[in-house]
Amino acid sequence: MPREKPTSPEEAIALMKRVAVQGSGFSRFAGVEPLVCWEGKSELLLELRPDLTQHHGFAHGAVIGMMADNACAWAAASVAGDVVTSNYTLNFLAPAKGERLRAHGHVLRAGKRQVVCRAEVWSEADGTDPILAAIATATITPLG
Amino acid sequence: MPREKPTSPEEAIALMKRVAVQGSGFSRFAGVEPLVCWEGKSELLLELRPDLTQHHGFAHGAVIGMMADNACAWAAASVAGDVVTSNYTLNFLAPAKGERLRAHGHVLRAGKRQVVCRAEVWSEADGTDPILAAIATATITPLG
Amino acid sequence: MPREKPTSPEEAIALMKRVAVQGSGFSRFAGVEPLVCWEGKSELLLELRPDLTQHHGFAHGAVIGMMADNACAWAAASVAGDVVTSNYTLNFLAPAKGERLRAHGHVLRAGKRQVVCRAEVWSEADGTDPILAAIATATITPLG
Amino acid sequence: MPREKPTSPEEAIALMKRVAVQGSGFSRFAGVEPLVCWEGKSELLLELRPDLTQHHGFAHGAVIGMMADNACAWAAASVAGDVVTSNYTLNFLAPAKGERLRAHGHVLRAGKRQVVCRAEVWSEADGTDPILAAIATATITPLG
Repeated sequence: MPREKPTSPEEAIALMKRVAVQGSGFSRFAGVEPLVCWEGKSELLLELRPDLTQHHGFAHGAVIGMMADNACAWAAASVAGDVVTSNYTLNFLAPAKGERLRAHGHVLRAGKRQVVCRAEVWSEADGTDPILAAIATATITPLG
Repeated sequence: MPREKPTSPEEAIALMKRVAVQGSGFSRFAGVEPLVCWEGKSELLLELRPDLTQHHGFAHGAVIGMMADNACAWAAASVAGDVVTSNYTLNFLAPAKGERLRAHGHVLRAGKRQVVCRAEVWSEADGTDPILAAIATATITPLG
Repeated sequence: MPREKPTSPEEAIALMKRVAVQGSGFSRFAGVEPLVCWEGKSELLLELRPDLTQHHGFAHGAVIGMMADNACAWAAASVAGDVVTSNYTLNFLAPAKGERLRAHGHVLRAGKRQVVCRAEVWSEADGTDPILAAIATATITPLG
Repeated sequence: MPREKPTSPEEAIALMKRVAVQGSGFSRFAGVEPLVCWEGKSELLLELRPDLTQHHGFAHGAVIGMMADNACAWAAASVAGDVVTSNYTLNFLAPAKGERLRAHGHVLRAGKRQVVCRAEVWSEADGTDPILAAIATATITPLG
């Protein structure tokens, strides 16, 4: 996570793209796109491709986990700066059969020693309603 | 997960490679290698590469999560056949700075409705002791 | 959990009081009061007493855990009948210093094999705003 | 948790009885007995009584949760002094039908910011083998 403190929502997104996505080999491969990372809230988008799926053709659990973890960590980073994920619990609710994944994260409580966040990961396809594919609760540790 | 029931440890590994790894776009990209998947126990290996890392150069959390989830699901599959992960809790213990990840999974309790498993993910590098990078507990649902 | 299917919100509460509270030695000791248990939602109240606290005088973690678990299980029971808790993750957010605990549960997804619920546990005291003391996510298994 | 640092296993138990059990209204009611609390390991015993059960006559989930949480927190306290539980995941494996509960906790990793522990809760009855009733993983925060 970036150590700089962005001064606007747009700057926060630019920083996330540069540090958390382009700086990470895996996030760059996956192509996750930060949409919001501001005041304890985050939103991320990911276009699904064949190399992001499991053996039934749905989004792979690890990709769903990445979206949930990132949504929590980026929401936490928006209030606490540089952070690292300590633990998370991920519940799969429905197969993510869609064309893309959208994750929302938000901070429930930001303490000095830990930030607790929740995330939802939605599976989206054109012409249909989004499906709640997974939820997560994460404990994020500020490094500052 | 494969529906066939393998009759030997070697057949189990061959089946896993064919169905769970080669059949899954993401697992094929990552290159995870099943070593054991028999009688409630599993072992998996993954060579780390730049496109599997996060922004500090360590194994990305999603990759660690995949290893933990797979270790649990494959251990469960060895006693329950076709399965799907319902939920897991992942605790990161140390940065995975090594050259490869090794995960061990084992079944704690196999019921008709759910199989509860634990996994450990180790970071390994030549010439040093392995480091326990993460642990997980997963609830796996048999589909049979 | 009761096996009977109540036909109104009032009947559901009466059933919960009889089966889940009066039928359970521990719930009777604690004095937990069901307020809502209908269509995937639940609400419970508990007056705090010295024998429900820990060594700082706040509500004991086990009492908070009971409220969270019950809120999830009762919300699940309102849609799935007789149920049993398989697992839950509980995050403590703030000390529960208040005079009573209020828990809200709701069903996120009700499947045949499992019901996933979330709960919030609030600490309340007269003249002050409620404090979110803990959150939980639970996986509940229908027994029917 | 006590802030004093005990200098022997016996002193540690005496301290736990005085501070964590006698100082806590709920633990005193339940009657939990510390057996070990030393060098990252803990063991606790609890005699089951009708007011500690749920509606099938088994140990109540909140009582099992207390044993798991205490086992983790006491193991953590033995290496980190005064601590507070941040979160835990509890998996119920089998009904706790026995005459008593025995919990074992151990530290997996003790960091400055958090201590990660695992616990097992066993149901015991004279003349039969113990049954693994529940497992937990907890994140404990040092307050020092």
